[in-house]
Amino acid sequence: MSYVRNAWYVAGWSHELAKEIPLALSILGERIVVWRSASGTLNALEDRCIHRLAPLSLGRCEGEGLRCMYHGLLFNREGRVVEIPGQESIPPKAHVRRYPVVDRHSWTWIWMGDEDKADENLIPSAVGLDHPDYILGHGHLDYAAEARLINDNLLDFSHLTFVHANSFGAGPQFAETQARITPLDRGIRYERWIENTLGSSSRKSDVPMDSFMTYDFLIPGILLMTGGVFPLGTASAFEHGPPDLSKAVSGVTFTSQAVTPMRDKNARYFFSWGPRYDQGDADVRDRLMGIAAQAFAEDKEMIEAQQRVIDDTADAQIMPTTHDRGVTLFNRLVDKLARQEEGISKQAA
Amino acid sequence: MSYVRNAWYVAGWSHELAKEIPLALSILGERIVVWRSASGTLNALEDRCIHRLAPLSLGRCEGEGLRCMYHGLLFNREGRVVEIPGQESIPPKAHVRRYPVVDRHSWTWIWMGDEDKADENLIPSAVGLDHPDYILGHGHLDYAAEARLINDNLLDFSHLTFVHANSFGAGPQFAETQARITPLDRGIRYERWIENTLGSSSRKSDVPMDSFMTYDFLIPGILLMTGGVFPLGTASAFEHGPPDLSKAVSGVTFTSQAVTPMRDKNARYFFSWGPRYDQGDADVRDRLMGIAAQAFAEDKEMIEAQQRVIDDTADAQIMPTTHDRGVTLFNRLVDKLARQEEGISKQAA
Amino acid sequence: MSYVRNAWYVAGWSHELAKEIPLALSILGERIVVWRSASGTLNALEDRCIHRLAPLSLGRCEGEGLRCMYHGLLFNREGRVVEIPGQESIPPKAHVRRYPVVDRHSWTWIWMGDEDKADENLIPSAVGLDHPDYILGHGHLDYAAEARLINDNLLDFSHLTFVHANSFGAGPQFAETQARITPLDRGIRYERWIENTLGSSSRKSDVPMDSFMTYDFLIPGILLMTGGVFPLGTASAFEHGPPDLSKAVSGVTFTSQAVTPMRDKNARYFFSWGPRYDQGDADVRDRLMGIAAQAFAEDKEMIEAQQRVIDDTADAQIMPTTHDRGVTLFNRLVDKLARQEEGISKQAA
Repeated sequence: MSYVRNAWYVAGWSHELAKEIPLALSILGERIVVWRSASGTLNALEDRCIHRLAPLSLGRCEGEGLRCMYHGLLFNREGRVVEIPGQESIPPKAHVRRYPVVDRHSWTWIWMGDEDKADENLIPSAVGLDHPDYILGHGHLDYAAEARLINDNLLDFSHLTFVHANSFGAGPQFAETQARITPLDRGIRYERWIENTLGSSSRKSDVPMDSFMTYDFLIPGILLMTGGVFPLGTASAFEHGPPDLSKAVSGVTFTSQAVTPMRDKNARYFFSWGPRYDQGDADVRDRLMGIAAQAFAEDKEMIEAQQRVIDDTADAQIMPTTHDRGVTLFNRLVDKLARQEEGISKQAA
Repeated sequence: MSYVRNAWYVAGWSHELAKEIPLALSILGERIVVWRSASGTLNALEDRCIHRLAPLSLGRCEGEGLRCMYHGLLFNREGRVVEIPGQESIPPKAHVRRYPVVDRHSWTWIWMGDEDKADENLIPSAVGLDHPDYILGHGHLDYAAEARLINDNLLDFSHLTFVHANSFGAGPQFAETQARITPLDRGIRYERWIENTLGSSSRKSDVPMDSFMTYDFLIPGILLMTGGVFPLGTASAFEHGPPDLSKAVSGVTFTSQAVTPMRDKNARYFFSWGPRYDQGDADVRDRLMGIAAQAFAEDKEMIEAQQRVIDDTADAQIMPTTHDRGVTLFNRLVDKLARQEEGISKQAA
Repeated sequence: MSYVRNAWYVAGWSHELAKEIPLALSILGERIVVWRSASGTLNALEDRCIHRLAPLSLGRCEGEGLRCMYHGLLFNREGRVVEIPGQESIPPKAHVRRYPVVDRHSWTWIWMGDEDKADENLIPSAVGLDHPDYILGHGHLDYAAEARLINDNLLDFSHLTFVHANSFGAGPQFAETQARITPLDRGIRYERWIENTLGSSSRKSDVPMDSFMTYDFLIPGILLMTGGVFPLGTASAFEHGPPDLSKAVSGVTFTSQAVTPMRDKNARYFFSWGPRYDQGDADVRDRLMGIAAQAFAEDKEMIEAQQRVIDDTADAQIMPTTHDRGVTLFNRLVDKLARQEEGISKQAA
């Protein structure tokens, strides 16, 4: 499966990266060490000493640099060796790859493509934990499955009816009717009204209401979802288009989710969720996180089992259904961008 | 190693397959879901949804069908998709493989070959747990080894002298002298007298007796064994041919055993054992099962170690001995049948 | 990575191989069974029965021979089958490889190359546990890493400054200055003075002293190290050459270490360490073993991590530093000897 390289991938929660404690991680199969210096600068290098390939993530932070603790080579934050113990001269080739890295919206993002194309404007507008409008819980989950299978899951919410009947209390509508899917420059937009409903487990209501949800799913695998509950008739009044969320009666929440391909067939799934300040408190947030924990475990069981079947299937073929429009649009976009990148790098070579 | 496909393989103990609880298993490397509907019909399908390859064994039984619980495709017991949520038409190719499956002699058997060749007369005559003549215990054991190595073990009882000296109390005769081996249409027959013996751990005697045992080992890997203890001289009286078991003084038991190739180099070994009603009771059965537990653990240790050595050996060669006549006859039969099947499927293609 | 075959590899501690208890091990990826007969002779054979490839290490010692306990073939200590139960004649090809094996210096050594080249004079002069001059502790450690990475570690002590700053209390000198490296016929010699020092954790001193250490690192991967602490000025007096160790004031110890390539990317590391009788007692030995336990765990963490990075790196390249002189000399020697062996075996073919 192909992935886009010229994109910002979520490496972790910013607050979990303490100063001067190097973190080893893999993105798109590449070993990366990320660290925050004593002065607070954020750095990411290829996690592989050029001397004998020891991981720099076992190293020691020194000033803005990182020292390999096998034989003591010191790397600056650009990835260049600036000291070889016992040796005067440093060969020009003595450097490792540096990755653009930035903290934004409570996540640490790493750019995996050409360094000169790294554009912070391409960072999706996730809602950070410190956002003034939301009370958010957060977490992450590791998958023994390819990131693209998790993307596929998030791009087709008809699975809610079956996988999440208990956790989210999703009704049959998710599978029976189509959502509105709109292509975006770097993703797709999903919009769905459920009319005349008593809600799901995260949005219960005593009287029938119209419930709206929408999310953008963006390169490389970022889901940003909100929605709310409105008086009966609102869906029609808006011609089943997006309503004014500030008019929602209840149920306005936000969830940011990120799927990061790690190595081999493993991925890390980051998520936050919680109510808008005027629509819930820490108790509501905790209840939502409880629902999420159950639902995400349901996804994980299904997707990891799916991965095992795929691994076992020679010449695996899928048979898309009408619900796969979002999946297909997004994956075509990924494949197109990946091909473009490949073409450009071939031209350059 | 080749295996015969046009054969009934034991998938499990019939009573362990509860209604509406789909069971995932692999036979000959193929993922299969087996389930019993609410009405009691037994079904087996390829365990792989045609939509996105989720396992149907995570699905939900509905009537005689099975619904994939990822995105809700409903399969009938023929393997045909009969419902795609949110979609009117169902593509003609929307089906998975169906396997003939039947309960017989307390085992659930699956036919792995051409469906139109599935012939229930080819099911070996195992003795079921409800057989009126025997009091049987039962169990199963998983092997990290190819099924054929277990078959080889069961086809050459000279190993009893060495592997099972303690458990079965097998004497040197198993290795010193040859049994009578007779080819059968779909297997081999093994017959052996041990004369003037005080018996083994399952057939002890205070006075010297003649002890007889016989088994059929049948395609694909089914062992059906009985025998008994007779007065001194019986072996000669029968010219070392099979005696009339109804005349046995003691020690008449029956064991049915089945070796099923699961996936990669793994196999499942099913077994029952116990005395004929007139020759023992539940206590005898339990004592025999205790002996079997010890003996089968001895086999498992040796065979799994053998598998590891084989895996480690480039161009592994064996050097058959005179005791290998049964092994050789049976494996030639397997290879011949497998080649015939392959030839026919090539002709058909 | 290549290894020398015409060399003695350490298979284990001699005292741990009890009589008539066959030991399974792998060296250079070859499965070997080693056993000591009731009469005390030491034997090593290919651990693979020629009949059906069961491991002989599950066998039973009989006299000077070893019986496979699957179907009872009896092997003599030359590796020749001398009995096949139930069969008169024994095919001429019925034999497995025999390995030269000898107990020396408390280790059991196995010769992995041509049997007719096995020369006990090539066994390195390790100090055995029963040596009259030393009080030694001992142990072993298994590595999930190739033996050559451990060799590399032992051939470049500049890592002491970084990996072992805490355990050995090694100062910056190991990395700042070069040791004297001298090529030997089958290895290299390392010699280093550290002048005007208060010592390391194994050689503390209240007043500044000159400290000397030296080791030979020999084919296939044997380290023999000693040293001692001398009055200030001794290094100069000896022109930084080796001193007379009998004149050492304190800190005279000996450590023998052996790195054995087992199978795949696994190695076993054997070691002893302790003071000369006149310079310490059992308490000193135990304190040294405690330091070693900490230090060897530091090495293991780094080297196994290095192995994982290497495994992950297509076309892995290293960039040697000036400290790599010993590594380079030794590995060139290994590669030269391995090529010579290969050339000779090709000529012979």
